[in-house]
Amino acid sequence: MRIILKGDKQMNAEIIAVGTELLLGQIMNSNAAYLSSELAALGIDVFHHTVVGDNEQRLRDAIEIAEQRADLILFSGGLGPTKDDITKQVLADHLVLPLRIDEKTEQQITKYFGDTKREMTANNQLQALVIDGSTVLENQTGLAAGMYLEHNKKSYILLPGPPNELKPMFRDKVIPILSERAENTEMLVSRVLRLFGIGESQLAAILADIIDNQTNPTIATYAGDNEVSIRITAKEKTAEKCAQMLDELEKQVRNLVGDYIYGTGSDTSLAQVVRDLLVDKDYRITAAESLTGGLFQSTLVNIPGLSLNFVGGLVSYSEGVKEEVLGVAKETIDQYGVVSFECATEMADRIKEMFDADIGVSFTGYAGPKETDGEKAGSVWIGLAVNGKETTAYHYHFVKNRNNNRQRTVLTGLDIVRRLLKELPSKNVKT
Amino acid sequence: MRIILKGDKQMNAEIIAVGTELLLGQIMNSNAAYLSSELAALGIDVFHHTVVGDNEQRLRDAIEIAEQRADLILFSGGLGPTKDDITKQVLADHLVLPLRIDEKTEQQITKYFGDTKREMTANNQLQALVIDGSTVLENQTGLAAGMYLEHNKKSYILLPGPPNELKPMFRDKVIPILSERAENTEMLVSRVLRLFGIGESQLAAILADIIDNQTNPTIATYAGDNEVSIRITAKEKTAEKCAQMLDELEKQVRNLVGDYIYGTGSDTSLAQVVRDLLVDKDYRITAAESLTGGLFQSTLVNIPGLSLNFVGGLVSYSEGVKEEVLGVAKETIDQYGVVSFECATEMADRIKEMFDADIGVSFTGYAGPKETDGEKAGSVWIGLAVNGKETTAYHYHFVKNRNNNRQRTVLTGLDIVRRLLKELPSKNVKT
Repeated sequence: MRIILKGDKQMNAEIIAVGTELLLGQIMNSNAAYLSSELAALGIDVFHHTVVGDNEQRLRDAIEIAEQRADLILFSGGLGPTKDDITKQVLADHLVLPLRIDEKTEQQITKYFGDTKREMTANNQLQALVIDGSTVLENQTGLAAGMYLEHNKKSYILLPGPPNELKPMFRDKVIPILSERAENTEMLVSRVLRLFGIGESQLAAILADIIDNQTNPTIATYAGDNEVSIRITAKEKTAEKCAQMLDELEKQVRNLVGDYIYGTGSDTSLAQVVRDLLVDKDYRITAAESLTGGLFQSTLVNIPGLSLNFVGGLVSYSEGVKEEVLGVAKETIDQYGVVSFECATEMADRIKEMFDADIGVSFTGYAGPKETDGEKAGSVWIGLAVNGKETTAYHYHFVKNRNNNRQRTVLTGLDIVRRLLKELPSKNVKT
Repeated sequence: MRIILKGDKQMNAEIIAVGTELLLGQIMNSNAAYLSSELAALGIDVFHHTVVGDNEQRLRDAIEIAEQRADLILFSGGLGPTKDDITKQVLADHLVLPLRIDEKTEQQITKYFGDTKREMTANNQLQALVIDGSTVLENQTGLAAGMYLEHNKKSYILLPGPPNELKPMFRDKVIPILSERAENTEMLVSRVLRLFGIGESQLAAILADIIDNQTNPTIATYAGDNEVSIRITAKEKTAEKCAQMLDELEKQVRNLVGDYIYGTGSDTSLAQVVRDLLVDKDYRITAAESLTGGLFQSTLVNIPGLSLNFVGGLVSYSEGVKEEVLGVAKETIDQYGVVSFECATEMADRIKEMFDADIGVSFTGYAGPKETDGEKAGSVWIGLAVNGKETTAYHYHFVKNRNNNRQRTVLTGLDIVRRLLKELPSKNVKT
């Protein structure tokens, strides 16, 4: 949850990233993503990102276009010591403002080279040049000074390109300036709901009434890798009022699609939710994996804190291992094949016994890309054995490529375990 | 290796990414980076990236600006089934061209919902709408059709937003079209060498003389996830001449850093190289994984075609499983601990026996984030048992986060196996 101060008149911003390396695809424009999410939190709309290379004419043109459509223009990159670094020179030229040496920055640069005993080149002094009339933004993690400038009713913010310089400068130097400018009238608070097992179009269809009639709070759906999320955002004068509005809308959403919601927040994952349930309720899990080849177990292990509830498991890739190591009956495989309800349930039972666990999960199927034994690629059985319940298996048919089918199989297995654990009583003697 | 035809008049391109989620900073514009690097390889200059939200007027304005400065405009995103997806509608409107249903795409969508037994909504049919006069680009990994359109001397390419749909569509459908358009005057031919086990700065230092004196062919280094690559590019009138120049430069590079080069080409991986060596020389591999939790095996299984050379293995996460299932001696663990040369070699021996394989690999260590038993997080032993050789183990100390330490451990294991297999004689009776 996040609290945002917002002025009456919504300010709108454009981010111009300067750097040929971006246009060559050598690096991603992570600065634009970072600045956008920070500006959204400040209640400032970002309507455009632009990337231009280290080219005077094209940068000047981009500035002119941005001035026609944005109140606030943020630059990232082009403040360094090399010939390619042209941002402040081009902007100063464009605004017909002189550059001047900033003494404090110059001292810092000289001190840096003294401290590190490295040789200072003439170029490094260029980093102390700032546009006259701007507020200098100190660089706590690098040498190039940033700038904040208001001119002809437009605001300009110049930030260095390296994310480890840009982020602290924005956080510590820019946010205080922008917050001061915003009036303390309204807040934006967002909440993210995470769903598995439903497609975005189906979700949008179910939520159509709510989506069509949204004003405040707003609601939006997003498709991610093998999952979708819903973001709801309220705008009100207090955090309490926002939370209350979000609670109401979340309740409506949960009434419609609550079964698919596995968690909230941007940082959660199905594996984390399963880890928490396993630890809280104190169940031990194991798995026998064929087509997933260990991916289910390695996804679980990637979340720290599971060592008492997961001891290990098997990758039973071949028929021989299913029989000889795991102990699936030869008759089962001969009669039903390895990709079958019967083989999946027997695998789940055997692995649960072998590793003395409470829950045994099995994965058997054809990941693709080709059909095998006449069975379609993507045909998958997930078996589930639990102490005190009848062992069962679920059939799926995934239709993407090998890698995605395997990932989807693992996530589906995690979701099956999540739904199971929600219903199971706690074994935890501490709770 | 990649061959690129290049016209006399350099084509220049702009990439417009459409999506409010980009302007909110919820996702990074990775598509622009991918497309830029592909276009650079095709010899097409990218001068601008633009990001606009799902807003008709602003998208239309962005198209008009792009038409004034680019020959080729690529769109990513906004082809999905929801109301927010407006790219093709706005472009069609702007160009005064009608939309029509593409029957082949419509059939694919209907088939998809039939195959997966999911309910098809009216929205999904929107994904079969294409701009009249465009070449439809088949989506091999999703539902929304892409488009290629030439109109008033400008070219437009519409691609879906999800990277796993955009990338195969660009590679398989767009590159052939763009290559055909280029004139055959001079060629750019690139070759990528992939390295593991060396850092980019160390590599750049070793290659400094070559890098400083480059003209044609050019040479550049790139840091990727846990590996680095070298791209060498020659410009000449024939493919033969280019190949000859690249061969010469590659030989120089291999003389300096050949030991680290595991493969060539953008699409290869350590796992693929190991798969090829296992299959060619006909060795059977297995693994006992502790900290990696199945990631080594699942990385191998993700490459198709290994089923005769990998039958399965164990995830021996806990001490108990190492002893009771795998059969490591209790004395070994008591005396040396689980993260030790002794435990790693015994794990490798036992797993090789248990799964009747030629090569047994073991992984035991502390992934982090915390220190455990006074041992530093990131301390890892990889054991290697091979028929006819003395079993050994290698010690590493990785220093990043839990997830990266585990990935690095798996890649290091693959590289150990690659180096081993290069030296082993072939057992393949067919060769």
